[in-house]
Amino acid sequence: MDVVIIGAGNVGTHMAKALKGVGVSVVQIVSRTMKSAVELASEVGCAFATDLHDINTNADIYILCVTDCAISPILRQLHLGKKLIVHTSGSIGINVFYDYAENYGCIYPLQTFSKFKDLNYSEIPVFIEANTEANQQILIDLMKKITSHVQVLSSQQRCILHLSAVLVNNFTNHLCTLAEILMKENQLQFDLLKPLVKETMDKILKYSPYIAQTGPAVRGDELIMQKHRDILENHKDVLEIYNVLSESITKTHSEEK
Amino acid sequence: MDVVIIGAGNVGTHMAKALKGVGVSVVQIVSRTMKSAVELASEVGCAFATDLHDINTNADIYILCVTDCAISPILRQLHLGKKLIVHTSGSIGINVFYDYAENYGCIYPLQTFSKFKDLNYSEIPVFIEANTEANQQILIDLMKKITSHVQVLSSQQRCILHLSAVLVNNFTNHLCTLAEILMKENQLQFDLLKPLVKETMDKILKYSPYIAQTGPAVRGDELIMQKHRDILENHKDVLEIYNVLSESITKTHSEEK
Repeated sequence: MDVVIIGAGNVGTHMAKALKGVGVSVVQIVSRTMKSAVELASEVGCAFATDLHDINTNADIYILCVTDCAISPILRQLHLGKKLIVHTSGSIGINVFYDYAENYGCIYPLQTFSKFKDLNYSEIPVFIEANTEANQQILIDLMKKITSHVQVLSSQQRCILHLSAVLVNNFTNHLCTLAEILMKENQLQFDLLKPLVKETMDKILKYSPYIAQTGPAVRGDELIMQKHRDILENHKDVLEIYNVLSESITKTHSEEK
Repeated sequence: MDVVIIGAGNVGTHMAKALKGVGVSVVQIVSRTMKSAVELASEVGCAFATDLHDINTNADIYILCVTDCAISPILRQLHLGKKLIVHTSGSIGINVFYDYAENYGCIYPLQTFSKFKDLNYSEIPVFIEANTEANQQILIDLMKKITSHVQVLSSQQRCILHLSAVLVNNFTNHLCTLAEILMKENQLQFDLLKPLVKETMDKILKYSPYIAQTGPAVRGDELIMQKHRDILENHKDVLEIYNVLSESITKTHSEEK
């Protein structure tokens, strides 16, 4: 089973290394960016190409690890006949392949990938969809080599999962960025918050986040919320975030009381 | 050094248990709620009262562990002369004591407390403020018995710290609640997100959240953001959160590029 990885960004890097790590034959890395292509290909020990015209057409599976909006433009340039092509997007349906491939699907690894940080792929859930049961089984078998959690999921459910991932990863991470900026402006180290960040996560992993909710909004402590709004007078965008999230906490917890 | 704890909620419970754990003499728990008062007093092995008139007036330090908006009303009822009284609030200045006490201050433990979850107090940073250097030293000495991280901080900086804690704890936790609700509605288990939650926090603890930012907003992937907005058509409050946070990510990362 020969695999070509298209895209050498965060997802492609971790996918290529994980497949190589369990002995799958990764035969080529294709990336527009020469530097990324060379770096990943040399790490995996395979060929590379920077032009889609130079893609190895003899592989068995082609895994697109590119930005969501790049999927369609790339498919228009690929002419791989009956080869199995999959993307790794959370929110793009597999109908994106309809006009361009006969055998297609999706393998969506639910994780936040950064090139600079190693990951244990065996702990990452991967969600599979394909146009036929046979293709689905090929993808399940391939992914089971690198992780124990492989699950079939429809495009629609995968999109809900991706949106949820944006909430719990992208947005929580950004709230930490805003806290870091606010603290720096006031000569406070972000490190002071790290024990709190750790405990926040521990609670979410052990209990439901609903029962773990604390703070002024869930207590209805208007006095404190007004103090915080006053501090944010010169940070209108953070103030807006403060207000919509506080309102949502109040609403969610009063509805279900 | 005899201590009275006023309030038997999340903060009071952990404070009383931590002080008792290192051999400090906690002589009384005062709580309006009989059940909480009895439970905590029996756990700590001390007296309890449910009426402020029955407070033990012979102790050395009185620690108010109550909701922020309850501090002033309680102070009006306490007549403790020259005794040292402190609160544990992140956002209330120590000027709240001005009319009611001669010796006062604040010990603010920066953590998310739930009665149901045990904590290792020695890993919690505690921030101190007092009206005199002598009182400050008493509070530092007391807190150093239960944690290695004790730091003097002004009321203003403490309020910034509390606001930052709301961002990284209350709000991130609530985003997980929203994800949990969304997933339940679509027959998906929140457990699927747990490896992602764990990795999100690992990255924040190891790197700056700014460089760890991933996702459609920082990539400028409008196609995906529109798909997510479509899903949230019937969740107007989550949609509003999605929009303000996505805009803030775009703004923060374009400003500093």
